[in-house]
Amino acid sequence: MSKKYVYFFGNQKAEGNATQKNLLGGKGANLAEMTNLGIPVPPGFTISTEVCTHFYEHGNTYPIELKEQINEKISELEKTTGKIFGDDKNPLLVSVRSGGAVSMPGMMDTVLNLGLNDNSIKGLIEQTGNERFAYDSYRRFIQMFSNVVYNMDHHKFENILEAQKKAANVTDDTELSADDLKIIVEEYKKIFKSEKSMEFPQEPQKQLEESINAVFASWMNPRANTYRNLNNISHSLGTAVNVQSMVFGNMGDDCGTGVGFTRNPATGENIFFGEFLMNAQGEDVVAGIRTPLTIDKLENILPHAYKELLDIAQTLEKHYKDMQDIEFTIEKEKLYLLQTRSGKRTSFAAFRVAYDMVKEELIDEKRALMLIDPNSLPSLLAKIFDAEEKQKALENGAYIGKGLAAGPGAASGKIVLSAEKAVELKKNNESVILVRHETSPEDIAGMHSAEGILTSKGGMTSHAAVVARGMNKPCIVGCSDLEVNYEDRTITCRQNDGNSVTLKENDWLSIDGFTGEILGKKINTISSEIEQVFVDKNKTIESSRLAQEYKHIMEWTDKFARLKVRANSDTPYDSAVARSYGAQGIGLCRTEHMFFDSGRISAMREMILSSDKEGRKNALNKLLPFQKQDFIDIFKEMKGLPVTIRLLDPPLHEFLPHDKDALKELADTLGKTEKEIKNRMDEIAELNPMLGHRGCRLGISYPEITEMQTRAIIEAACEAKKEGIEVLPEIMVPLVGNYKELANQEKVIRETADNIMKEQNMQIEYLLGTMIEVPRAAITADEIARHAEFFSFGTNDLTQMGAGFSRDDSGNFLPEYIAKGIYENDPFAVLDQNGIGKLMEIAVEKGQKTRENIKLGICGEHGGEPLSVKFCHKLGLNYVSCSPYRVPVARLAAAQAAISETSKS
Amino acid sequence: MSKKYVYFFGNQKAEGNATQKNLLGGKGANLAEMTNLGIPVPPGFTISTEVCTHFYEHGNTYPIELKEQINEKISELEKTTGKIFGDDKNPLLVSVRSGGAVSMPGMMDTVLNLGLNDNSIKGLIEQTGNERFAYDSYRRFIQMFSNVVYNMDHHKFENILEAQKKAANVTDDTELSADDLKIIVEEYKKIFKSEKSMEFPQEPQKQLEESINAVFASWMNPRANTYRNLNNISHSLGTAVNVQSMVFGNMGDDCGTGVGFTRNPATGENIFFGEFLMNAQGEDVVAGIRTPLTIDKLENILPHAYKELLDIAQTLEKHYKDMQDIEFTIEKEKLYLLQTRSGKRTSFAAFRVAYDMVKEELIDEKRALMLIDPNSLPSLLAKIFDAEEKQKALENGAYIGKGLAAGPGAASGKIVLSAEKAVELKKNNESVILVRHETSPEDIAGMHSAEGILTSKGGMTSHAAVVARGMNKPCIVGCSDLEVNYEDRTITCRQNDGNSVTLKENDWLSIDGFTGEILGKKINTISSEIEQVFVDKNKTIESSRLAQEYKHIMEWTDKFARLKVRANSDTPYDSAVARSYGAQGIGLCRTEHMFFDSGRISAMREMILSSDKEGRKNALNKLLPFQKQDFIDIFKEMKGLPVTIRLLDPPLHEFLPHDKDALKELADTLGKTEKEIKNRMDEIAELNPMLGHRGCRLGISYPEITEMQTRAIIEAACEAKKEGIEVLPEIMVPLVGNYKELANQEKVIRETADNIMKEQNMQIEYLLGTMIEVPRAAITADEIARHAEFFSFGTNDLTQMGAGFSRDDSGNFLPEYIAKGIYENDPFAVLDQNGIGKLMEIAVEKGQKTRENIKLGICGEHGGEPLSVKFCHKLGLNYVSCSPYRVPVARLAAAQAAISETSKS
Repeated sequence: MSKKYVYFFGNQKAEGNATQKNLLGGKGANLAEMTNLGIPVPPGFTISTEVCTHFYEHGNTYPIELKEQINEKISELEKTTGKIFGDDKNPLLVSVRSGGAVSMPGMMDTVLNLGLNDNSIKGLIEQTGNERFAYDSYRRFIQMFSNVVYNMDHHKFENILEAQKKAANVTDDTELSADDLKIIVEEYKKIFKSEKSMEFPQEPQKQLEESINAVFASWMNPRANTYRNLNNISHSLGTAVNVQSMVFGNMGDDCGTGVGFTRNPATGENIFFGEFLMNAQGEDVVAGIRTPLTIDKLENILPHAYKELLDIAQTLEKHYKDMQDIEFTIEKEKLYLLQTRSGKRTSFAAFRVAYDMVKEELIDEKRALMLIDPNSLPSLLAKIFDAEEKQKALENGAYIGKGLAAGPGAASGKIVLSAEKAVELKKNNESVILVRHETSPEDIAGMHSAEGILTSKGGMTSHAAVVARGMNKPCIVGCSDLEVNYEDRTITCRQNDGNSVTLKENDWLSIDGFTGEILGKKINTISSEIEQVFVDKNKTIESSRLAQEYKHIMEWTDKFARLKVRANSDTPYDSAVARSYGAQGIGLCRTEHMFFDSGRISAMREMILSSDKEGRKNALNKLLPFQKQDFIDIFKEMKGLPVTIRLLDPPLHEFLPHDKDALKELADTLGKTEKEIKNRMDEIAELNPMLGHRGCRLGISYPEITEMQTRAIIEAACEAKKEGIEVLPEIMVPLVGNYKELANQEKVIRETADNIMKEQNMQIEYLLGTMIEVPRAAITADEIARHAEFFSFGTNDLTQMGAGFSRDDSGNFLPEYIAKGIYENDPFAVLDQNGIGKLMEIAVEKGQKTRENIKLGICGEHGGEPLSVKFCHKLGLNYVSCSPYRVPVARLAAAQAAISETSKS
Repeated sequence: MSKKYVYFFGNQKAEGNATQKNLLGGKGANLAEMTNLGIPVPPGFTISTEVCTHFYEHGNTYPIELKEQINEKISELEKTTGKIFGDDKNPLLVSVRSGGAVSMPGMMDTVLNLGLNDNSIKGLIEQTGNERFAYDSYRRFIQMFSNVVYNMDHHKFENILEAQKKAANVTDDTELSADDLKIIVEEYKKIFKSEKSMEFPQEPQKQLEESINAVFASWMNPRANTYRNLNNISHSLGTAVNVQSMVFGNMGDDCGTGVGFTRNPATGENIFFGEFLMNAQGEDVVAGIRTPLTIDKLENILPHAYKELLDIAQTLEKHYKDMQDIEFTIEKEKLYLLQTRSGKRTSFAAFRVAYDMVKEELIDEKRALMLIDPNSLPSLLAKIFDAEEKQKALENGAYIGKGLAAGPGAASGKIVLSAEKAVELKKNNESVILVRHETSPEDIAGMHSAEGILTSKGGMTSHAAVVARGMNKPCIVGCSDLEVNYEDRTITCRQNDGNSVTLKENDWLSIDGFTGEILGKKINTISSEIEQVFVDKNKTIESSRLAQEYKHIMEWTDKFARLKVRANSDTPYDSAVARSYGAQGIGLCRTEHMFFDSGRISAMREMILSSDKEGRKNALNKLLPFQKQDFIDIFKEMKGLPVTIRLLDPPLHEFLPHDKDALKELADTLGKTEKEIKNRMDEIAELNPMLGHRGCRLGISYPEITEMQTRAIIEAACEAKKEGIEVLPEIMVPLVGNYKELANQEKVIRETADNIMKEQNMQIEYLLGTMIEVPRAAITADEIARHAEFFSFGTNDLTQMGAGFSRDDSGNFLPEYIAKGIYENDPFAVLDQNGIGKLMEIAVEKGQKTRENIKLGICGEHGGEPLSVKFCHKLGLNYVSCSPYRVPVARLAAAQAAISETSKS
């Protein structure tokens, strides 16, 4: 039996259905489904994506059976419609549309009115009694066909149209008479002939064949390729082709066409939301030449069609269990559906729709959770501009440039060009925007003090971007038109017109982290509703519909998720926020961030600059009480939830001063000469600090650091326990690549902890584990697991070392890599499952081989990215950890992963 | 049946034999073997290494059967010797010695005369009729036992001895009378009692038990641990204990003791080489208090013993098929062998012994190859100091410091502190030593011009060390006492006495890359004999015995080796050297080294500083003829052997000027301002250049570079082919981590190559492959192999990224890691088989899965390191590639790997 390539739909019966999106494309599958549901759909057939695959796998040729199958379906279509292809009495006209599993710009879109020729036009005139309509359809067909199949420029046809309008002395297309249009058709055919050295194809079979060919060929055109690369769509999916009999919304005043959403896509409100035009074709609604009417007006014009439309909308929602985005045409009062698909919606609408549909008992909680894109959550939580104010500012020319939208949210403040200045102004309660070439750990305090961060360099995962997202600060990075001049204390932004705008420090600046827009003006911001209710607690939940929806939906996630979600948090405040957002522990407490505070950094520097162990110990003793108090506060905040504390990780030079003044100050404080300090700095400078003396290598060189940190942790745990607070510290050794490194640190930690517990006469249960962030660690995880009670995947570094990408430097080539499809996503944003993910798989397998119940987590940036969270679920990790403001994202993604799994099995 | 732990030897029959080194230790196995051979060995028994293992695995306790088994063997020993343990008539005295499979300092070494006590001494006196001898033996026993078993300080006993000498008014130990010694024995026992609060152990059983205990306990003492870590000896091997009846070389003038080699260990000459002392114990020969006699003197003193010794030496050589290092004692004219083992020898002796033994038909060629340490080869090939001159210089105080011996060989020249100066002086035929803090690729020309390189910073795999070894230049790095002052143009070396020596640029300096010694004086060097014959060709092979031996031995390696050996070579000259040393191709031709030449670097810089593709193309066109000519010359030199050419690899900033003058010059040349150039330099500067914009990332960003390089290769191949020279280019894409990168470059390369072949109307066979040097590449090698006809493991980078060690920065922690046993070797010198080797295994397996016959090689530094070469053999690679001067090393290691394999199977 020959393989089936073509699927018919019509007469309330279709050969396909909605589950066959991969075979029939989204459009084709839904046309079939609607047909089966008894919804009026113009009959037609779909050529499957397998033909596309065959086409590309066999040197651009078609399966031998295809032609016959198409001919059969044309016959069936003729039978169903009672029309004949190319007939001069009752001609069959069809549309040809591409349609992959995912809709995609760059693909050949549509050819309408196919089947018209010098003969069949007579039939169309006869049938409609409307010569003008018929010739207008013919000239549209010629133009569309010549453009999409023969790649001819639109302008060539537009010029003819314009010339004829001039000749006829009219200004509007609709004013052209049938005769005018006849002339135009002739001119169109002439220019086709002169360009292509052939007559315009008259044979409907040939028109169809060439249109189908054009669809398949467009699958691999550069724009489509790029789009797939950018959107992580497989090239091997292929597109389907839909051939459908024409219905006309432009045949007269009892005709029309429109689009609609079954609910409001902006708010989610359960009211049909649509627009339509009478006597028009679909493209006219989109083109915006005429202003469409709101859907309620249809009730007065065509009440039956209107009622049918609303009924169909309900049917579709009920059937698809989701808000639908539909297209319809009314031909002589008869309603036809041309398309249905899930409707795009705002984050706010997504929550409302999901929540309402559960309340309406249309869907269950699982389905509701699947309807929300986890990536839409951060924008629900972020600060926003007062919309009116922003609009006004834009209208007044406040726009000065655009960068990468690296942290969602809106911020407004005075420009400051240094972290110090940010801290200083913040003390006076001034709002500031920190603008830098790029940021470094020294700027942390300044970033904390700023409302938002803007950098001229860096990518989506630069220091500024990562830290800003961690702090939930609006952030724009990589604004290459921006020049930051630290000396003049100005910033200058090149404009498209070649001019530039210069602002001074202290001038007002607003940044929109949703869009990347930079505005040179103050614009007021407001807290997100959810934050007001759950974090600020200055608004009651009763007063916010969104907060109520959020609360329920988040509760549902916990019903289904298997992965636990923890937060990366270094401070009691962040820990409190994390708890508000439902974190079930801290997965990464970076102790070094505690050392940058002004009271501590000098002791840290003293430690680094000590030439002997004694000196280091003295300095570390100064740090101990700070560190201990931090841990006590965090333990109290986390009330018995696990807290993973990572020992000192960054290379020591990160703690040393970066400018001359700070150097001098340090020299004075320590009673050393600047030269001595400079020498030590040169000594520990590194060519590739990422691969240098950091992580556990520090603890191995200077065990006194590990001792001090262990002491701080265990003493803090004892103190908290004395106050009746349960504590679950998990001590994490960073950058282990060899089990002997962990064995070395384990000895120091266990001995120190034992001593303190003896001193305090208390028992503290704690876990000891390691990061898996060096490729060698993944490969030898069986050995490492002998000493580790848990693994936490540090996927930032694992990506850096595994793929050989310095996160700080990858801006020079990664954007191009992604544009060229070498990586589908930025591997620092979305976990590279095919490469780094394989290393994780190896580590999980080897780790569990040695220690069956080893606790497994992830604390890289990826822990808050939905695709990566789902991968972690599949890997069987116990938890993901992410910044506090990503906790809801991860919770939702974790629930979705679990739901997908059960619905598959 | 209980397990056997104790193995007897005596009466020409032993329970063990030489194959049981792991069970009985080297010493014990050889004592057993000699006994079985009928060689006179004092009878005794060996407690196996399994007891040691048991001891450590069971909380420092012994197998229950052990005590009884020892008692049985003591009885057997009493029966064999006719002596009784602790007897006052005919006491049995024994020695107790440790002895692992590998001899090891730091272990408890020896207790002699065990069994002596206040009772048995009477028997010793009666037996020997020598009271003085007996008391001397007793006091030696007490001292040795107290020291090694009870850890008492030697000085405590020496003080008593000195006091008694004073009291007796003598200066020499031998002048002490029996009565003096009796007093000393009493004093020794007293001090033991006062220190240990117990009587000196009198019971021979207890003495034995405690001595055995001390041996096993010493296995895990810190010094032994460190030694094993440093020498790559497994901690789980364990030591054996040998208990052997005493024979005395110090019982009178018919007694003696000595050591010997069956051949001359310095030259390899086949003449018994030994030394002895009459009336002495073994330790006296080593201690050097009395000057031993050369062995030929023994013929006159004890002709029978002498003849027997020579016979035994021959027997042992024949039996062990290797030169032996023996210890013997003569007691009352009777010869006893106390030890035999393979003798340590110089590189020169190793060649001669191996070659001679084959000629003598003592061994076959395979065995001969196994007798030579591949690591001894570079020193055979290196330049050497005129020995007399160096000695004289040292005596005259020319020594000024010491660093890490990073490149073998001797060099003498005038101090220069910059590469430019080196080139300049070299032009005037002056010899120079380049002294720098550290070197960079910009210094390559200077390094070429220098006789040797000395740096104050860096480790064994720093840039200076790696490049110097590649160039076969003597090199000393990491001389931390050295200060290099570029401004004053001086170097200053701190001395141990706190003073310092300062030398100026142009002063003479000599460096000994064998030892790391630095001398502030000119010392003449001479070429190695092998180099004179095979490379310089200024000496005939007939005139050099060593060259003949080398030639034959290298021919043998090719008979057995399965791995091919290629060379890393970037120039026609290096290629010629590589061929002289037997390279079977070039495994790594680094094209970038060609760009540093003065004629080319400015075009390279022009390319880098171009702001557009056109500018880059213009600059690349200037480079094309140079690059092409280089390849033509190399193809000609390699005469049809494969040549693997790696496309541009290092980050572009490496090519930019490092100092202000060069920057100004460049600006002038290019007609740009210094600021413009500085800005571009800032733009491409990177925080972690190792993980930055380099390797194929450059070719992907700037395909015109790949095009130019492909053009140079293929055009050169065409030209060579026209001249009738066969060419086998292999184009290698560096730093691939994702198959799409390779696919991208493959397209550029294949298209360019096809075009040129069409232009030239010629067909060039070439391979296209990639480095495997990014961990992700290893993990996804199955995908990459779809596009790669060969893999070449870049183990330098694979180690850097896999273990997360920057080679340039690892000096801050790797030495400590190795000292602490975290890595057994520097992973940049010896391949880390347990970690990086696992990545290689994965890559080989996955690569072969996709492409069964994929060609596999290695071109990292490890390609010339014997242990790593053997690992590559096991992995099934096709070839290793190393610096030309390491080719003989790799050839020998490859042969050994193959021989070991067949002899095992």
